Order: sequence, then C-alpha cells, then structure tokens
Amino acid sequence: MSRSLNLAVIPGDGIGTEVVAEGLKVLDAVLAGADVKVGTTTYDLGAKRWHATGETLPDSVLAELRGHDAILLGAVGDPGVPSGVLERGLLLKLRFELDHYVNLRPSRLFPGVSTPLANPGEVDFVVVREGTEGPYVGNGGALRVGTPHEIANEVSVNTAFGVERVVRDAFARAQARPRKELTYVHKHNVLVHAGHLWRRTVERVGQEFPDVAVDYLHVDAATIFFVTDPARFDVIVTDNLFGDILTDLAAAITGGIGLAASGNVNPDRTAPSMFEPVHGSAPDIAGQGIADPTATVLSVGMLLEHLGLTAESARIVDAVSADLGERGTAKRRTSEVGDALAARVTA
Amino acid sequence: MSRSLNLAVIPGDGIGTEVVAEGLKVLDAVLAGADVKVGTTTYDLGAKRWHATGETLPDSVLAELRGHDAILLGAVGDPGVPSGVLERGLLLKLRFELDHYVNLRPSRLFPGVSTPLANPGEVDFVVVREGTEGPYVGNGGALRVGTPHEIANEVSVNTAFGVERVVRDAFARAQARPRKELTYVHKHNVLVHAGHLWRRTVERVGQEFPDVAVDYLHVDAATIFFVTDPARFDVIVTDNLFGDILTDLAAAITGGIGLAASGNVNPDRTAPSMFEPVHGSAPDIAGQGIADPTATVLSVGMLLEHLGLTAESARIVDAVSADLGERGTAKRRTSEVGDALAARVTA
Ligand SMILES: CC(C)[C@H](C(=O)O)[C@@H](O)C(=O)O
Ligand SMILES: CC(C)[C@H](C(=O)O)[C@@H](O)C(=O)O
Repeated sequence: MSRSLNLAVIPGDGIGTEVVAEGLKVLDAVLAGADVKVGTTTYDLGAKRWHATGETLPDSVLAELRGHDAILLGAVGDPGVPSGVLERGLLLKLRFELDHYVNLRPSRLFPGVSTPLANPGEVDFVVVREGTEGPYVGNGGALRVGTPHEIANEVSVNTAFGVERVVRDAFARAQARPRKELTYVHKHNVLVHAGHLWRRTVERVGQEFPDVAVDYLHVDAATIFFVTDPARFDVIVTDNLFGDILTDLAAAITGGIGLAASGNVNPDRTAPSMFEPVHGSAPDIAGQGIADPTATVLSVGMLLEHLGLTAESARIVDAVSADLGERGTAKRRTSEVGDALAARVTA
Repeated sequence: MSRSLNLAVIPGDGIGTEVVAEGLKVLDAVLAGADVKVGTTTYDLGAKRWHATGETLPDSVLAELRGHDAILLGAVGDPGVPSGVLERGLLLKLRFELDHYVNLRPSRLFPGVSTPLANPGEVDFVVVREGTEGPYVGNGGALRVGTPHEIANEVSVNTAFGVERVVRDAFARAQARPRKELTYVHKHNVLVHAGHLWRRTVERVGQEFPDVAVDYLHVDAATIFFVTDPARFDVIVTDNLFGDILTDLAAAITGGIGLAASGNVNPDRTAPSMFEPVHGSAPDIAGQGIADPTATVLSVGMLLEHLGLTAESARIVDAVSADLGERGTAKRRTSEVGDALAARVTA
C-alpha cells in the first residue's frame, strides 16, 4: 500500500530558500526507500511578496495551505519590512489560524557540537511552548500615540481550554519518555491570575499521569538552570512568551539556532502542522551558500514523526547526530551538509 | 561638617537576616573613617510577620519607611506563604509606592569567580530594568475561575511617561561609562504596541545623547548573546518582566545570584530607594551561617553610591573584587566573608 505525502513549502526569504532546498533533498532521500510518494506545492510568501504586493497571507493561500498534510517553512523577513508586519501578518497568523497550540522545540546537545557552557552535561530536553494564547494574542492597543500621554497595553489572554490542552499534550510527551519528568515554567508569584490558572491546571491534569514527576520553576530561575544544569530538564511546558525566550536560550546552549528545529503542531489534526528552523532569514549571509541547513533537516524529521513516519524520522536524527559527531563544527557549505545528510539517510 | 545617614533595614526571613547583618557590618566599617553617622531602624516584615498577623505592609510602616534616606532589604518568604502574597503585597508594593522606576542590576564577572561559561570574556554591564510598569502592574483579572470556561488575563501597561523616564536614566548611565553603549531589549515584532512605544522613545531620547551608541535586541535573541558573548554589553535598558528574566540569567553567568546586587532606585528622590540582593530567603540553607553575603555587601555599595558616598562605594566594590580574586570560590562562612570584607574596606 503506497502512501502519498502532500506538502506545502514556504521557502521564504534570505537563507530560507537555501536551507529548504537541502531539507527537501534529505526528505526525498529518506523516503526513496519507503513506499511514500511526496508531492510539494511551493508558496511564495514573505518579504519579497510583501514588497511586491503588500500581501502577507492572502485568504486564498491560507485556504490552499489547509489542504496539505503539513507545511515546511524556511524563514521570512528582510530589513526593509517594518517590524511586526510579517510576524503578526504571516508567522503568527499561521499559528493562530491553523491552531498550532503546541509549539514543540527539542534541545539536544549532539556529540561534537560546541556549546558556550563549560560543563553542559547530557542535554536532551524538549520545550512544549503554548502557541495560541498568552501575550501573543495581539489583544493590545494604544491611546494618544506619539504624545506625552501615550499609553500602550498588551494583554496576555489565557483560558482553561487553551492551557489544559497544551498541558495535557506535555504530560503525554513526558509519559512517553524514559525519564518521565515535566517542569512547568511560569511566573505565578507576579502574574497571579494567569500563573495560578497554569498551576491549577498542571495539578489537575497531573492526576491523569501519576508516573510523571512534576516540578515548577519561575521563568527567571529557569534561565539560571539552563546555564548551570541543563541536563536536569526532560520536558518543559510553558507559556507562549516564556517559551519564546527559553527556546532561544536552549538553542544557544546546544550549539546555536543553526541547529534548532521546531514544530508548530496541531495535535488534533484539524489543520496541517508547520515545521521550521528556529533561525531567521539571516540577510547578512544570504545568497552565499554557507547557511547551516541542519535545523531545517531536523525540522523535516519532526514533520515525518508527526505524520507517523517514525522510522524515517529517526533516520534523520541519527544522520544528523553521526554527521555532527564526525565533522564537528568545521565550516561546510549548505549543499555539502545537505548532500552528506542525504547520503547518510539512504545508506 | 558631619553627615548622618538614616537607614531603614528589612532583614526579612531565612538567610535575609544573616546576610543583612554582614552588610551592616561592612557599612559600619567603611563609614568608620568617613564623617558619617549611621542610624538604623529595623522593620519586621516578611513571612514571619504575615504568619503572625496576616500583614504584608501596613500603611503605618510604609509611612515610616518614607522618612528614611534609604532602605536595605535582605530577603523575604518561606514555603508556607502562598505564592504572590509577599511578592505583590510587600516587594512590588514597595517598588510601586516608592516609585522605584529604575531597577538597577550590575553584572560583573569578578576575577576568581567561576562561571558556567567556557569563554565568558570581560563581563561588566548593567541592566536598567523598568520597575513600575509593564506586566508587573497587577492589572490582570480572571473570570469563571476554576471552571472549564476560566479566562485569566494579565495586562502589561506602558506609558510614554514611564518609558521615557527610565530610558533617559539609562542613556545618562551609558553616557557616564567609558564605552557609552546602550542596548534596548524588547519584543517589538510581537508586542507591537508596547514595543513601538519603547522604540520611538529610545529614538527620541537618544537625540539628547549623541555620544551613546544604541543597539536593539529582541529579548529572545538577547538571551543568546548573554551566553555566547556577554562582553558585548555595556548598559541594557528593558521592560520590567524582560529585565526580571535577563538579570537572573546575567547573575548566573557571573557567578550566581549569591553575588548579584540590585537597587530599586527612585532617581527623582521623591522617596527612599531600596537596595537588596537578587537572591531569595533560601529556606534550605537558612540558619546555618553559610549564605554568601557578598550580594548584600555589594547592594550596600550601591546604596552608598546612590547617596553620593562614591568613594566609600568604590571601596566596597574593590574589597569584594580583591576578596573574590584571592579566595576564589572556597566555601566560607557568612560571618567570615563579612569580616574579611569589613577588614578590607577599613584597611
Ligand atoms: C519571529 C517571531 C514572531 C517568533 C516568535 O516570537 O515566536 C520567533 O522568535 C520564534 O521563536 O519562532
Ligand atoms: C520576587 C519577585 C517579585 C521579584 C521580581 O519578579 O521582580 C524577583 O524575582 C526579583 O527579580 O527581584
């Protein structure tokens, strides 16, 4: 029985297009042996389109994206686009419209990878960042803009529904891992309303997962442990903004955002999930063929896992691990890395 | 002409009382030579008082505190007090009531101090954290609490008045430092209303400080540089919550919160400023005489600088630097460290 995989691809801008090409190369290679036919549709979204047409995400494109099994995104943006336009109009719009309530960010320190930490230990955790609530909802506003009496508010919205579903997802992930440990991170001593909703939710949902050991950290304290003892973490669940901050720090201690993959996951599968490297479009190195595609390749691995192709997903992770372990941090061209990984996943 | 210094002291709970004793010891020692008479009034606030009376900060105490030149606080809290009670009812209340809009947190990696970073470089920056606005205002609320339809909001309030005054303070501090560099940190690509208010304010106030070089980082990216290149920072100005997170991370990379001092400063001097170590009451090691009082001693140094006793303040910083450089991270008793520092500042 052959299967077909119908993929939407948004290469985006800058190095986005370069790394996505390698991601697709490795995808083809890993599926060559499997009985899976891949079809891709490329969507032109990002800074270039905005400059040309003023569009960020037309409704018709959004409707088409919904028809795919998953989305692979490279990176969008360039210095000519005002801050917030593509973030709110495209990236966050996709997360909200496609109900990507689990923003999944694994952090693993692969052998051979250099880290800024002197004694990192064995780092292998995953952050489950809430993706559709919190300070990201865009419910702020401003009054008397540009005057000495300006007031600008940002509202963090948190619901029992929204917190519970992501917390349950995180517990299930912790349950499925050997260590079965969940750390939830918030700031409930200051953000008492949202924080106590998170706390009560973790306590209640935790009763369904008696095997999972639960720990709490304030977000400020969590950053301390990220640098003094990152090996202590197994699964972390947290709010949208705290997750944004913590996952960049997590990437930094595990070799940089050039290696950090992410999934914007809709676990209920009411819409396609989207996978993307954590890094941006990096205009400073774009077009030179030197961007590291590893994060994108790992994102492809997450995509395959989400679609149930777990053996192929594992082959990708193993290939990356072996590749990094052998070559370490030697500078290689984008296509060289892609070729090496493609060769490994077929071997 | 002799001067008198009228100090309010809030030792608090746990190791708070232990470290404050050493802070006062060093204060006495450094002022013994100077023609300054110190008078202290001790206020019993914190977990013990709350357990006994249910009070966090009675109005009468707040009124008395206002009559002092400055406040020295140790740490408050114990596991028996519900999360948020002392934070909102005492610590944050003091910051808001006494208009501590500059929350000043220097980060310096002293010689001899061990850091989790493999190659930290020369770390010596100061974070100017806004102290009276942002997500800390306590303007949130919740509906249908405890039901499946609960909604909990937290409102970040930001005003032109509030942002401008802290930004101007940060520029002035950058201007007074040799490097004259200011990095402002926000998340203006997502929190567009508050973020753009910050951005426009920095751009406008910056015109008054043409010598200061200005740089911007998203808060997530800032955490990356904290671990990959902390030496790049000189002065950082940021929002209340981002500052909370970044300063714990800053403490971690410069030897831990046992060394991190802070000042809750009212630069207009309409009320006393308050100085305190960044660490908490550490119930796990309280009463053993092993807490490191260095952060409190450095906070006393900040207090003296705020009151114009700059030579005495410098003597404290030099003493800490020499002490750490000589003894490194050898474990010493709380009183030993205090004695050593007291001896150095008089020498
Ligand atoms: C680009 C931006 C909107 C985004 C975020 O803040 O979520 C990015 O930082 C990320 O982590 O994916
Ligand atoms: C205890 C808490 C209210 C406080 C804060 O969040 O500001 C602390 O973390 C700090 O950094 O001083």
